[in-house]
Amino acid sequence: MNANSECYVVGVDFGTLSGRAVVVRVSDGAELGAAVHEYAHRVIEDELPGGVRLGPDWALQSPQDWIDVLRTAVPEALAASGVPASRVVGIGTDFTACTVLPATADGTPLCEITPERPHAWPKLWKHHAAQPHADRINALAAERGEPWLARYGGKISSEWEFAKALQVLEEDPETYAEAERWIEAADWIVWQLTGAETRNVCTAGYKGIFQDGGYPSEGFLAALNPAFAGFTGKLGRELAPLGGLAGRLTARAARWTGLPEGVAVAVGNVDAHVTAAAADAVRPGQMVAIMGTSTCHIMPSDRLAEVPGMCGVVRDGIVPGLWGYEAGQSAVGDIFAWFVETSVPAAYAERAVARGLTLHEHLTELAAAQRVGAHGLVALDWHGGNRSVLVDHNLSGVIAGQTLATRPEDVYRALIEGTAFGARTIVEAFEAAGVPVEEFVVAGGLLRNPFLLQVYADVLRRPLSVIGSEQGPALGSAIHAAVAAGAYPNVVAAAAAMGKREAAAYVPDAERADAYDRLYAEYRRLHDHFADGGLLHRLRSIRNEVGA
Amino acid sequence: MNANSECYVVGVDFGTLSGRAVVVRVSDGAELGAAVHEYAHRVIEDELPGGVRLGPDWALQSPQDWIDVLRTAVPEALAASGVPASRVVGIGTDFTACTVLPATADGTPLCEITPERPHAWPKLWKHHAAQPHADRINALAAERGEPWLARYGGKISSEWEFAKALQVLEEDPETYAEAERWIEAADWIVWQLTGAETRNVCTAGYKGIFQDGGYPSEGFLAALNPAFAGFTGKLGRELAPLGGLAGRLTARAARWTGLPEGVAVAVGNVDAHVTAAAADAVRPGQMVAIMGTSTCHIMPSDRLAEVPGMCGVVRDGIVPGLWGYEAGQSAVGDIFAWFVETSVPAAYAERAVARGLTLHEHLTELAAAQRVGAHGLVALDWHGGNRSVLVDHNLSGVIAGQTLATRPEDVYRALIEGTAFGARTIVEAFEAAGVPVEEFVVAGGLLRNPFLLQVYADVLRRPLSVIGSEQGPALGSAIHAAVAAGAYPNVVAAAAAMGKREAAAYVPDAERADAYDRLYAEYRRLHDHFADGGLLHRLRSIRNEVGA
Repeated sequence: MNANSECYVVGVDFGTLSGRAVVVRVSDGAELGAAVHEYAHRVIEDELPGGVRLGPDWALQSPQDWIDVLRTAVPEALAASGVPASRVVGIGTDFTACTVLPATADGTPLCEITPERPHAWPKLWKHHAAQPHADRINALAAERGEPWLARYGGKISSEWEFAKALQVLEEDPETYAEAERWIEAADWIVWQLTGAETRNVCTAGYKGIFQDGGYPSEGFLAALNPAFAGFTGKLGRELAPLGGLAGRLTARAARWTGLPEGVAVAVGNVDAHVTAAAADAVRPGQMVAIMGTSTCHIMPSDRLAEVPGMCGVVRDGIVPGLWGYEAGQSAVGDIFAWFVETSVPAAYAERAVARGLTLHEHLTELAAAQRVGAHGLVALDWHGGNRSVLVDHNLSGVIAGQTLATRPEDVYRALIEGTAFGARTIVEAFEAAGVPVEEFVVAGGLLRNPFLLQVYADVLRRPLSVIGSEQGPALGSAIHAAVAAGAYPNVVAAAAAMGKREAAAYVPDAERADAYDRLYAEYRRLHDHFADGGLLHRLRSIRNEVGA
Repeated sequence: MNANSECYVVGVDFGTLSGRAVVVRVSDGAELGAAVHEYAHRVIEDELPGGVRLGPDWALQSPQDWIDVLRTAVPEALAASGVPASRVVGIGTDFTACTVLPATADGTPLCEITPERPHAWPKLWKHHAAQPHADRINALAAERGEPWLARYGGKISSEWEFAKALQVLEEDPETYAEAERWIEAADWIVWQLTGAETRNVCTAGYKGIFQDGGYPSEGFLAALNPAFAGFTGKLGRELAPLGGLAGRLTARAARWTGLPEGVAVAVGNVDAHVTAAAADAVRPGQMVAIMGTSTCHIMPSDRLAEVPGMCGVVRDGIVPGLWGYEAGQSAVGDIFAWFVETSVPAAYAERAVARGLTLHEHLTELAAAQRVGAHGLVALDWHGGNRSVLVDHNLSGVIAGQTLATRPEDVYRALIEGTAFGARTIVEAFEAAGVPVEEFVVAGGLLRNPFLLQVYADVLRRPLSVIGSEQGPALGSAIHAAVAAGAYPNVVAAAAAMGKREAAAYVPDAERADAYDRLYAEYRRLHDHFADGGLLHRLRSIRNEVGA
C-alpha cells in the first residue's frame, strides 16, 4: 500500500463529559489528528435544563451534546489530521454504557418531545436511582433461579437497562408508554449516522441481559410488574456483531461530520470493550484494565465459566467467536483524587509547587521511596463501593494501622496498594473459576504514573503490558470502522495491524512481590471480614437516614 | 478568717516539658499567682548531654531541670501573687509517673556521678524501651498466678518501676549495683525539699506494684533474674499517706524557693491523681478524666473489684480510706493534633486564617453543624495504642466508612467520637465489674472544646461536670499542702473548700444520645474484631521489620 492509496478511518469516543474524535491511518493505526468537544450540558444531576428538580442519585445527559460531537469534533479532527475527507472510508463509535434513552419509533428522543419530564431524558451510566428496582430484579431472579443471573456474577447492576426501564415504568408510566424504543446511546448514535436502528451484541449482552439468544422471559418481567411484561418489545432482537457494518453514512450525517456520504459506519460499541482492540489484546486470556477514575477489566476467553462477582460474560461481547468477560473496580483514580483534594496538608502542596510538581507527583515520589510495608497500613479500596468481586455499591473504604507517625504519603501509597490488591482479587477470582489470565494489559489515564504501575506488577506478580495510545477507545472505534469498511477481515486482524501494545513494560521484583504477598494476605482478611457488608451497610443506612 | 489572717500554700506541678508553680489561698482555693519554668533539657531522647547516643524508645530527664523549677517558678509565682512569703504555710508537689531514677543513699542522682551512662539518668514516664522486660514480668506473673496481677487489669506496663529497673539490671548491671535507691521523681523532689526520703502510697501502688502491704516476692523477682531478687531493698517499705506531712522545708530548699524554712512539705503525688482534689471529686464514684494529649481516668471507690484493662487499683491511692482506680486512653488530643497536622488541606487552613480561627476551631465548627451519623464513619481511637481496656500499645487506628464524599470535618468528628466511644468503653468496664461511676468530671486541656465535651456527654449519656481551674494538678498539690500544713483535717475537707467543680456543665441530648448508641454499637463491633490484635499486630511487625 503506497501513500497514494492510503485510506483512513474516524473513531469517535463518547465519554462522560466530552466526546473525542480521532483520524487514524488504516494501514498501521497511526493517529493523525484528534479533537475534543465538551458537552454543553455535561452531566445533568440537579435539575433539568427547564428547571425541574431531580432526585438524589440521578444522572442524565442531553442527546444534543452527542450530536454536537459529530458536528464539531469530527470535522476538527479531520482538519487537524490533514487527511482529505475523500480518503476516509469509515467511522466507528463507542459510548459509555449503560447510557440509555427512551425514543419514538423513528429514533426521536422523548426528551425532545416532553423535555419537562425527567424520565424522558437519557439516563447516564452513573444514574443510580434505580437501585431499589435492581434489588427487586436480583431478588426475583435468585428466587426463580433465572439461568442468566450467573452470567452476571450473581447480580445485575442498577446502572443497567432493565433496572432503569423499570424505574421509568413505575415512576412515570406515561413516558414509559410513549417510549416505543428503549435504546443504548451506543446504538442511538449509530442510528443517527446511518438512519437505521441497529442493536450491538455488546451492550445487549452486558447491559441488556441478552443471553443464549434471548432476554429475560415475559413471565419474569410480569412478576416484577404486570405492565413490564412486554418490555423487551422496546429493545432489539436482531443483534449486530462487533466490527460489523451497521450501515452507510447518511447525507445528513455527512453534512454534520464533513465525511463522505456513504462511508461505512461500524456497529456500536462500549468504550472499555473497544479498547481491547486498540491494545491489540483480543486473544483469549488478554485482560485489559482500563484504569482511570475507575477501572474496567475486559478479557476474551475461549472458556465459559461463572466467575463470582464479575460484571458479565457475553458471547462475542468483545470480539466475535470468543466469550467476553467484564469485571471492574468502582473507584481507582477517583480515590487518589479524593485523597489529594481532601487529605493532604498545605505544607505538601507548597513543597510540590516549589518543586514544580503536581501534588500527585510529589506524593508519588515520597511514597516510592518507601520499602514495602514500612507504612504499617492496609486499605480497602471501597470508597466508591465494590463492583468486583463483591458487587456492592453500599460498601465503603476502610484503613487500618494508622498511628501518630502516619504521614500523607503513607496513606497515599496504601490507597494505591489497596487498588492493586483489589485488582489481584479480581484476577484470582477468574483463575480460581478456571478462566486463565495470560496477560495483564493496562490502558487509561493512570498510565501516567509509573510507580503505580510498578506496584501493580509487584502485587500481581506478573509483567504488565501497556497500551501504546493515549486515546484507546477512539483508536479502538477506528479499528472497528476499518473492519466495517472491509479493510481487514476481522477485528483480530485489524487490531494486530492497528493496535498498539508494549509487552512486559513493567516486570515484578521478586523481593517486593514477596513482601506484598504478606500485605495482600492482610488485605484479604480485611476484605473478607467487611465483605458481608454488615457494619459498612449499617453505617451507610445511618448516614442515609440522617441525611434524608 | 479575715484578710489579715489569710494563709497560703504553693502547689508545684512537674510536667513532661515544664514545671508550674501556683500560689493558692487556703481559705477558698483562689489562685493568686502562677509561673512556669520550661526544662532546659526537655525530654532527652536521642543522646545524652555528653553526646552518648540512646536507643529507640528511650526517654530521659535531667534532675537539674526539676530543681530549676523550684528555684525559678516558685519565687516567680510568689512574686506574681503579691503574697508575702511569710504567709505561706506549705508546699505540695505532683509529678509525672512513673518517672524514676537511680540514686545513692543520700539521694544523689547517679547521673550526677556517672553522666556518661544512659541508665544512670532518670527514666521519664514515656521511656518505652523496657517493653521486653514488662512482657517477661507479665508472662511470669500470669504463669505463677501472682495475686497482684489482677490489681493492674492483668498487665503491668513497660513504663513502671519494675520493668525499668529490670532493664537497668540487665543492660547496665554496674549502674544497677550502684543504685542504692530506686525512687520515683515524685518522692525524690520531696526529698530535695525536706532533706529526708519518703515514699508516697500513690506511686508505690500504681507504679511500684505495692499491694496488700508488700511488693512482689523475692522468689518471683529471682525467677525473673537471680540478681533481681533483692530489688525491693532499693525501694521504700514505709509508705506515706496522701495529704500527709512529708517533712519541713530545709534551709537549702528555702533559699531555692524563697519560702520560709520549716513550712510543711506534703507527701509526693502524681499529676493525674492530685487533680481529683482540685476538682473536688474525691468521693466514691467521681471519675475524673484528665483529657489532654492522652486521657487519664481517676476514681475513688469504696469497692474493690478487678476491672478488666484498668491501669490499677490501689488502696488509699487517691484519697486515704478509699480504693483508687486508674484507667487511661493512650492518645486523645494527640490524635486530633496529628489529624490537623497531616490530613487537612490548604483550603481549610486558609479559610481558618481568614476567619481568625485555629484549624481546630474551624474543623470543630464544621463538624458541630452535622447531625449524628451523617458522616457515615466510625473510627477506632488507637493511633497511640490502647491503654484501657485492652492494654496493648501495639494496636493502631482504624477508620471505616470513607467514601469519595468524605470531608476532613467528617473524619475530625469521627475521631472525636472515637475517643468518646473509648471513654464509654472504659466507663462500662467499671460498671460491669461492679464499680459504679456516679459522676464524670472533666479536667485538662480539652476543656477548651465545648463541642467535644457535648459529644462526650451525648455518647456517655450522662451529664459532664468540669473542673473550675486551668491548672488542676498545681491546685491539687496546693490542696495537699494545705492538708499537710494542718489547715484542713483531710483531703476531702480541703478539696471541698479549695477545689472547683461545675456540676452538669454539659447535659446529654436524648435524641443525639440515642443516635450515638447505634454508632457506639458499631464501634464496639470494630473494637472487638480488632481487639485480638492479629491483623494490627502483623502490620506493626511488618513495619518494624522493614524499618529495622
